[in-house]
Amino acid sequence: SRTVPITVAYGDGIGPEIMDATLRIITSGGADLDVDVIQIGEAVYKAGNTAGIGPEAWESLRRTKVFLKAPITTPEGGGYKSLNVTVRKAFGLFANVRPCPSYSPFIATKHPGMDVVIVRENEEDLYGGIEHRQTEDVTQCLKLISRPGTERLIRYAFEYARRYGRSKVTCFTKDNIMKITDGLFHRVFDEVAAEYPDLESEHWIVDIGAAKLADTPEAFDVVVLPNLYGDILSDVAAQIAGSVGLAGSANIGSEVAMFEAIHGSAPRRAGQNVANPSGLLLAAVQMLVHIGQGDVAERVHNAWLRTIEDGVHTYDIFDPEVSKEKVGTSQFADA
Amino acid sequence: SRTVPITVAYGDGIGPEIMDATLRIITSGGADLDVDVIQIGEAVYKAGNTAGIGPEAWESLRRTKVFLKAPITTPEGGGYKSLNVTVRKAFGLFANVRPCPSYSPFIATKHPGMDVVIVRENEEDLYGGIEHRQTEDVTQCLKLISRPGTERLIRYAFEYARRYGRSKVTCFTKDNIMKITDGLFHRVFDEVAAEYPDLESEHWIVDIGAAKLADTPEAFDVVVLPNLYGDILSDVAAQIAGSVGLAGSANIGSEVAMFEAIHGSAPRRAGQNVANPSGLLLAAVQMLVHIGQGDVAERVHNAWLRTIEDGVHTYDIFDPEVSKEKVGTSQFADA
Ligand SMILES: CC(C)[C@H](C(=O)O)[C@@H](O)C(=O)O
Ligand SMILES: CC(C)[C@H](C(=O)O)[C@@H](O)C(=O)O
Repeated sequence: SRTVPITVAYGDGIGPEIMDATLRIITSGGADLDVDVIQIGEAVYKAGNTAGIGPEAWESLRRTKVFLKAPITTPEGGGYKSLNVTVRKAFGLFANVRPCPSYSPFIATKHPGMDVVIVRENEEDLYGGIEHRQTEDVTQCLKLISRPGTERLIRYAFEYARRYGRSKVTCFTKDNIMKITDGLFHRVFDEVAAEYPDLESEHWIVDIGAAKLADTPEAFDVVVLPNLYGDILSDVAAQIAGSVGLAGSANIGSEVAMFEAIHGSAPRRAGQNVANPSGLLLAAVQMLVHIGQGDVAERVHNAWLRTIEDGVHTYDIFDPEVSKEKVGTSQFADA
Repeated sequence: SRTVPITVAYGDGIGPEIMDATLRIITSGGADLDVDVIQIGEAVYKAGNTAGIGPEAWESLRRTKVFLKAPITTPEGGGYKSLNVTVRKAFGLFANVRPCPSYSPFIATKHPGMDVVIVRENEEDLYGGIEHRQTEDVTQCLKLISRPGTERLIRYAFEYARRYGRSKVTCFTKDNIMKITDGLFHRVFDEVAAEYPDLESEHWIVDIGAAKLADTPEAFDVVVLPNLYGDILSDVAAQIAGSVGLAGSANIGSEVAMFEAIHGSAPRRAGQNVANPSGLLLAAVQMLVHIGQGDVAERVHNAWLRTIEDGVHTYDIFDPEVSKEKVGTSQFADA
């Protein structure tokens, strides 16, 4: 395979530790990367750049088009905007793919049969940043749903399902209340679904759909949904599958892609060599597939699975019933 | 106790069956009610009134101020608005209280220790009905959060916690993204919490909070949250506690109150004498407390509990491990 340039941000909180571990693992696995490290996040905010990202970082992202990103801390107050959202929007990363399989019996879960992939819309909905204070006591935020944004996402979800041999795509909306916005999302889902007669498709109202997902996740396969529902329900799915600490995600655009763990920067755990690098590592595995190093991805994924199966677990997934050895971040990477 | 006038709607789908059962049970339990039955829902829509509710019904509600409502079917298309929302807004029913306890070991659940009460904001957020189609391909819906609406709700949640001897109130928002709207909700929560130093209070970002709720619901007590999150997470909580079919709810305003099951009208189950009347019955129990017939409420609740403990279960909660007899709606009411 040829050397592929990628951009890497070590992030804040536990970010540097899990990024170190991740890069060490994928490099020993044979990843052939030319890594450009950028500074974004807390340090940049504190230096007075409230965007948290500067021109060299943008330049690197535009050049490599592949971004492996550790979690970032957004400082409280001061009108700081989430960097995740900034990058997603700047590059039109319209789909956020979050696989949430169970690793039963090696990681404790009440839902051993689940294998859900959440495909979340990633630019629209209430994440548009159109929010205002009408008076001191009245505030408003705009939810936006467009046909092109929805269509592209839903087609991506069906294509993903086909490519990975999945059999069903489920859509959640609240179109009994939001008949126009969620109604559009649902209608586009039905239209696109009709183009994929080989795949089963279904729609649930999001409240009862979420209840079913939390209770009987094995009833779902690929689930495609608007941004905010996807944010909430991907955390739910990942957590009941084992831990939010295990889930990686791919933010997919037509040119650029960003890969990150779904969890946050956990500042209270920082610098203690305890964090689980699995979420970021599995995001890196998605990245390796994306850049055409699928053989390395498979090798790394197998090594990770083997470590999990051996019961070598970080504190967050440690369970006396199934775990053998409680390890820190670097020991986990060694294993 | 004195005879209390109430308004009753038999609803659509399984509505009439579960309302029959409910009224029969509470009447034998000694409820002293003067029942005024109104026609709302499907039949009214079909007769050409797209609001689904007419002047006599409004008149009855204004007079009795107490509404026991079975689920309603909103017809597809035609711009029909949800009747639930219409009534909630017309009477300023600002708080929606949804207890979701486990009934372990009598009803199967993976979360035997849970006893969550969801206090959901009931008038604002994306339920304002301010939605529009900008072009054929671009749609918008407005999310509204106001200080008075939020303050009243949150104070209600803390008062509820005190009254029922609960120890903690938790708030969920997504104020790392919606800094103005959800930020206001969170800020008001903190302000009100400071007035209740006897109660513990905490805030979670809704994605990770929802994950924790779905995974470890026993970590929560009273949970107060904006309308849409409350809609989704009350279904989640009720379902993982046992079934959405078990949860009743109280919609509380300063003058009027409405009591209903949290589930829908399940048209496919209608007329088969299979539906579980428990959600509506437990809503009626909340109503009896509200109108000062607390002794009857207790008697009915105990009789219901006893039936559940005896393993006399409708199909939706039937589980060979814990159930003894599978019964229909009317047999359940008899028991
Ligand atoms: C950090 C936050 C802005 C982000 C989101 O809401 O998208 C995170 O929760 C996620 O799911 O990636
Ligand atoms: C039927 C629907 C409008 C309603 C809601 O969204 O509030 C229902 O889901 C509920 O939770 O009471």
